[in-house]
Amino acid sequence: MDIISEELNQKYNIVLASGSPRRKEILTQAGLDFTVIKSEGEEVITNSDPSMVTMELSRQKAIEVYDRINGTYEASSDIYAKEKPIIVIGSDTVVAIDGQILGKPKDEAEAVCMIQKLQGRSHSVFTGVTIVLQSGEAENTVTFACETKVHVYPMSNQEIENYVLTGEPMDKAGAYGIQGLFAKYVEKIEGDYLNVVGFPLSAFWRELQKMLNR
Amino acid sequence: MDIISEELNQKYNIVLASGSPRRKEILTQAGLDFTVIKSEGEEVITNSDPSMVTMELSRQKAIEVYDRINGTYEASSDIYAKEKPIIVIGSDTVVAIDGQILGKPKDEAEAVCMIQKLQGRSHSVFTGVTIVLQSGEAENTVTFACETKVHVYPMSNQEIENYVLTGEPMDKAGAYGIQGLFAKYVEKIEGDYLNVVGFPLSAFWRELQKMLNR
Repeated sequence: MDIISEELNQKYNIVLASGSPRRKEILTQAGLDFTVIKSEGEEVITNSDPSMVTMELSRQKAIEVYDRINGTYEASSDIYAKEKPIIVIGSDTVVAIDGQILGKPKDEAEAVCMIQKLQGRSHSVFTGVTIVLQSGEAENTVTFACETKVHVYPMSNQEIENYVLTGEPMDKAGAYGIQGLFAKYVEKIEGDYLNVVGFPLSAFWRELQKMLNR
Repeated sequence: MDIISEELNQKYNIVLASGSPRRKEILTQAGLDFTVIKSEGEEVITNSDPSMVTMELSRQKAIEVYDRINGTYEASSDIYAKEKPIIVIGSDTVVAIDGQILGKPKDEAEAVCMIQKLQGRSHSVFTGVTIVLQSGEAENTVTFACETKVHVYPMSNQEIENYVLTGEPMDKAGAYGIQGLFAKYVEKIEGDYLNVVGFPLSAFWRELQKMLNR
């Protein structure tokens, strides 16, 4: 059976464990109603493989928020007051080039350096996703990661500086937003576009259907 | 020299020869100020190759609008009153599968048929673009086309019907909007994402730079 967004909204309390405005937009675009509860724990990375890192961080975020909601059960929080099972979604995105992980730039100078690395060649974007689905007293947890290759046209230093001056890079992994002004410089991608924006919607949708049909 | 959007807005009157809301959004996202003047001529197709069709139609749209603006020169229209050279942009997008071109669906039944064809496999989206750049008494014209491969997950008839009922397919080539609810069903793409939305911004940007630097 295929569950459509409206059914999902009626049957579950969906929680996004991420404050990213891009993730909120993507899930809203998919027709989902959800609450945002940001994870607060320190991110612990035990891996250097970018795909594994994003899975690990997505799981930490989702489980922390799931446990936090469960801890407030007695206090009958808004989430629980609705008496529906919870779905918590955790997600983490990194940009990787030559085995190096690029996070969010600390300042404009670092943003310039990151884009100088990315221009004129291809790199990978990884997003890890963890879905925690409450089922009675227990829960099911699924974690996966998606990779998309992104090819960036050669950029002059002037173009890079102009781009950084727009302020767009500052809150973004790899110092660019494919959905913003940087789209001018993206030659092509291989993989899911929304994965680069920050959330692999179609893969998430299929994993969620599988979990619900189990 | 790289021309950035602000310079372009100052130096040229940019005209988009298309009423598509998606194209307007993409050019706005790129920081361009422009006027929309829709072409009104009948579309004449002399070709069956999808790439050639989109180039042909984009050229017809751009040239019709360019000539129309030039014809109103004496009447000193708003466009000409600014006394800047004109850039006219024409564009056309089609979806192609097994050599067949899918345009906009006539009704919901046709939209269902189109998506039944597209689900569970890959197809191509072609967008043709023509840029007419005024240069003194003459003009330079460049036409090109971009192809993006789109892989759609298998969809059940229920999913297809639910999607068509949202109304999203009705004004779109191939009966889907990758930037809308259909994103749930797009496994991956190879090529430029915005090309699928309706305008290959990064290729356009490079072609325009080349024309301006000639």
